[in-house]
Amino acid sequence: MEKTFIKLLKEIDLSDPIFIEALPGIGHVGKLVAEHLIHELGAEKFAELYSPSFPPQVFVGEKGIIEPMKNEFYYLKSAGEDHKDYIILVGNTQGLSPEGQYDICGAIIDFVEKYGVKDIYTLGGLGTGQHVDKTKVLGAATSKELTKMLEEHEVKLRSSDGGIIGASGLILGLGMSRGMNGVCLMGETPGYFIDADASKAVLIALISILKLEVDVARLEERAEETRKMISKA
Amino acid sequence: MEKTFIKLLKEIDLSDPIFIEALPGIGHVGKLVAEHLIHELGAEKFAELYSPSFPPQVFVGEKGIIEPMKNEFYYLKSAGEDHKDYIILVGNTQGLSPEGQYDICGAIIDFVEKYGVKDIYTLGGLGTGQHVDKTKVLGAATSKELTKMLEEHEVKLRSSDGGIIGASGLILGLGMSRGMNGVCLMGETPGYFIDADASKAVLIALISILKLEVDVARLEERAEETRKMISKA
Amino acid sequence: MEKTFIKLLKEIDLSDPIFIEALPGIGHVGKLVAEHLIHELGAEKFAELYSPSFPPQVFVGEKGIIEPMKNEFYYLKSAGEDHKDYIILVGNTQGLSPEGQYDICGAIIDFVEKYGVKDIYTLGGLGTGQHVDKTKVLGAATSKELTKMLEEHEVKLRSSDGGIIGASGLILGLGMSRGMNGVCLMGETPGYFIDADASKAVLIALISILKLEVDVARLEERAEETRKMISKA
Amino acid sequence: MEKTFIKLLKEIDLSDPIFIEALPGIGHVGKLVAEHLIHELGAEKFAELYSPSFPPQVFVGEKGIIEPMKNEFYYLKSAGEDHKDYIILVGNTQGLSPEGQYDICGAIIDFVEKYGVKDIYTLGGLGTGQHVDKTKVLGAATSKELTKMLEEHEVKLRSSDGGIIGASGLILGLGMSRGMNGVCLMGETPGYFIDADASKAVLIALISILKLEVDVARLEERAEETRKMISKA
Repeated sequence: MEKTFIKLLKEIDLSDPIFIEALPGIGHVGKLVAEHLIHELGAEKFAELYSPSFPPQVFVGEKGIIEPMKNEFYYLKSAGEDHKDYIILVGNTQGLSPEGQYDICGAIIDFVEKYGVKDIYTLGGLGTGQHVDKTKVLGAATSKELTKMLEEHEVKLRSSDGGIIGASGLILGLGMSRGMNGVCLMGETPGYFIDADASKAVLIALISILKLEVDVARLEERAEETRKMISKA
Repeated sequence: MEKTFIKLLKEIDLSDPIFIEALPGIGHVGKLVAEHLIHELGAEKFAELYSPSFPPQVFVGEKGIIEPMKNEFYYLKSAGEDHKDYIILVGNTQGLSPEGQYDICGAIIDFVEKYGVKDIYTLGGLGTGQHVDKTKVLGAATSKELTKMLEEHEVKLRSSDGGIIGASGLILGLGMSRGMNGVCLMGETPGYFIDADASKAVLIALISILKLEVDVARLEERAEETRKMISKA
Repeated sequence: MEKTFIKLLKEIDLSDPIFIEALPGIGHVGKLVAEHLIHELGAEKFAELYSPSFPPQVFVGEKGIIEPMKNEFYYLKSAGEDHKDYIILVGNTQGLSPEGQYDICGAIIDFVEKYGVKDIYTLGGLGTGQHVDKTKVLGAATSKELTKMLEEHEVKLRSSDGGIIGASGLILGLGMSRGMNGVCLMGETPGYFIDADASKAVLIALISILKLEVDVARLEERAEETRKMISKA
Repeated sequence: MEKTFIKLLKEIDLSDPIFIEALPGIGHVGKLVAEHLIHELGAEKFAELYSPSFPPQVFVGEKGIIEPMKNEFYYLKSAGEDHKDYIILVGNTQGLSPEGQYDICGAIIDFVEKYGVKDIYTLGGLGTGQHVDKTKVLGAATSKELTKMLEEHEVKLRSSDGGIIGASGLILGLGMSRGMNGVCLMGETPGYFIDADASKAVLIALISILKLEVDVARLEERAEETRKMISKA
C-alpha cells in the first residue's frame, strides 16, 4: 500500500450532513460515544479508510479473528428533531507520524467535503492524570458563535491551555481552511481506563446540541462489554 | 536506492503456492522454522528484496564477510502429502518505520500475488517476558473456518489481546484486502534468547496443518549453530 | 494536505526587503521580538504558510477559539532611518521532522527570494539551563564582514560551539546556497520561561543594526500579556 | 530543498579511482584519517552534497562563521606507489533517518560510479565503551580475497558480531549491488573523545594496503587542533 485510500462500500446521497469524528484516543471517550450513536440510531457503514501511516500490524479480535487497521465511515439520514443527515467516523487506530496524520485527516476532509459537510464535531477525552469527581465536558470551537452556543449547553470553554492533539484537532484545523465550522467536545478523564462516565458526559452534551434522542443509560453497558473484550486474552 | 525493489533471480512457474512468511522477530522463532523448512525440503532461492526502509547498515557474517540487508524468497514444488507448491520468505531484517513496513509488505503481497498465492501462513514468537514451562502455539486467522482448523491442530486461539505487530501481522492484513486467507502461528517464548523450543512447537503445528514431512529433531542442532554464530565475536 | 503551501493574502511589491525570521523556539525569545516589531511598526500580514510537517494538532486560544498551526508573513515598507522594506516571519510552530524542516524552510526561502531578499536576520534564544545575570546577545553570520559588523554592535560571536538548530539555523544555511547574506542573533536565556530580558537584549541589538526606532520598554508589557495568556487555562 | 543533490565544482577525469568514505562517526576516527590524507596528499575538492535528510541546522565554525551541513568530495590523481586515482568523501554530518541514509548513500554510489569506482574503503571507529590499551584495527570486506588481504595487513577480522551501522556500512552494501568491492576498517575506540590513537592505527593499516606515503606523526597534531576547536566556545 503506497498511499491512503478510501474504499466506498455504498453510493449514498446526503444533504449537508453533520460530520462527527471519534477515532480512538485517551480513555476511549469519543469512540464509545460514536459507537453508541451508531448502534442506537442504526447508522450504516458506507466507506472504509486504509493508510500506510497506520501502525504496521493487525488486531486480533474475538476468538482469534484478525482485523486489519482501518477507519470506518457510517451515515444516518434525517436523524433527530432537526431531521439532519450525519456522517460518523470511527476506527481502531489513528495515524502514527505527524505527516501521516496530515495525510489521513486531509483524505478524510476531502472525502466528507464531497458530501457537503459544513459542520464538524470531534469527540475525545481530556486526560487529567488523576481521579475525576464530577466529569466536566470541555469544548473549543472555530468561531465565537459556536463557543457561545457551547456555553448555552453547559460546555466549559478551554482557554489558551495548549492544543487539541491528533485527529480531533487536526480535522478541525484542516476543515477551517475549507470554510467548515468545527466544535471539539472533550470529556475529562483520568485517562488510564475505558471511561464510560466521561463518554456519558460528552454524549449528553452532544445530543443536547444536535437534538438527537439516544438512550444514555445503555452507554454504560456498552462500556462494560468493551472492558471485558479488552481484558479477556 | 529510492524505493523497495525485488530482484528476480530465476523465472519460475508455480501453481497456487502457499506463502510462508518468517522474517526475523522475537526469539528468532519464525526465522528458525523457515530456515529449517528451506534446508530440510531443499527449497531454492528465486528472488531478493531490498528496501530503503531497512536499517541503514550491513551485517558482518562469519570471518568478516559483509552481508547486505535483504529479504529472500525461496520456492518449493509439489511438497508434502498434498503435493503443494510453496513460497517461503526469510531475511535478516524487517522494515524500520511504519510507512516502510507498509511499503515492503505491500511489495511482498504484490509479488506473491502474481504467482497465484491464496493462502498465507505467517510465523513468529509471542513474547511472555518470563520463563515458559511448556511452549504453547497460539494462533489467529482471517476466517472462522481457519480458526476452527487451527483448534483441530491444537493451536490455542488468541482473543482480543492486542495486535500482531510487524510483517507477520501486516502481511495478513494486506493479504485480506486481496482476498487472501491467512493464518498466524506464534510460539510462546521468553523472548530474550534464540528459542528452539518455541520454534519446534511452531514447526510441529505447521507441518501438521500442511502435511509436510520434516525432521523436527534436527531443528535443535540448527538453533545451536545460530546461537554459536551470534555469540562468537 | 499533501505538501507545504503558502497562501498569499495580498499582492505586494517590495524593494530588496530584509527578511527577519522569528519562529517559536527556546524562551520565546525571537517570537517576542518579532511580535513587538510587528505591533510597534505596524507591519501587515500578507501570507500564511501551512505544512503537513507541522505538529498534527490545533491550538486553543483565548475563550475556546481554535487556531490552526501556521506561520505568518508580515511586511513593512520604508521603515527606519534607512527607509528599508522588511518581511517578518512569525508563527505558532516549526516543522517537527528534519525532512519537514528542510521542506518548510526551503518553501520559505523560495517565497522570500521572489521579493528580492538578499539579507536575512534570524532571531532566537540560546539556552543556558541556568540563571542568567546579565543577558548577552550572541551572534553568528555568513561572512567576515557581517561578524565584524556584529562586534561593532556589541554582539558577542559564537565560535565552534555546536550548531544553530531549527529554522533559525536552516534558513541561513539554505539562504547561503542562494547567495543570501545571513545573521543569527541569540539572546542568552535559562530557557524555561518566557524571557523578556533576553528578548529585550536581542531587540536592542537588532534595532541598533537595522536603525529602526522601536519602544523597547513596551516589550516587557507584551511579555507579561503572553505569560498571562499561557498560564491561564 | 526537496531532495538530495550534488553540486559539481569542477569537471574532472579519473581512471578507476579508489573511493574512500570517512563521514563523521564514533570518535571522529574515520574523519580524522580522511582529513589527514586530504591535507598531506593535497587532494582537491570537486563536489559537494546537500540533503534534506541532514540535521536541520547549521554549524558555527571559528569566529562566528556559519557553515551549512554538507558532505564534500575530494580527488587525487596518480597517488602513491601504484599511481592510483582516489575519491575521498568527508563532511560535517550524516543522514538522520534510515530512509535518509539510503537516499544519501544511494546518491553517493550513483555519483562515484560515474567516475568508474570499483573499490571502496570505508573508515570508522568501533566503540568499546571502555579504555583501549592498544588500539586494534578491525575489518570486514565483501569477499574472501579481500578479508585474506586484510589479515596480511594485520587487520583483525570481525565475525558475526552485529552490523556496520550508518554510511560506512550502507555504502558498502549499496556498492555490492553494483558489483563494487568493499572494505571497512574500524579503529577500536572508547568513543567518547576525539581519538587520534584509533585514527593513527586505521591510517597505518590503510596506507599499508594502498601503498600511500603519508606522515603518520602529524595526525596527532591535527587531532589536537580539532580538539581545541571543539572545546573552545
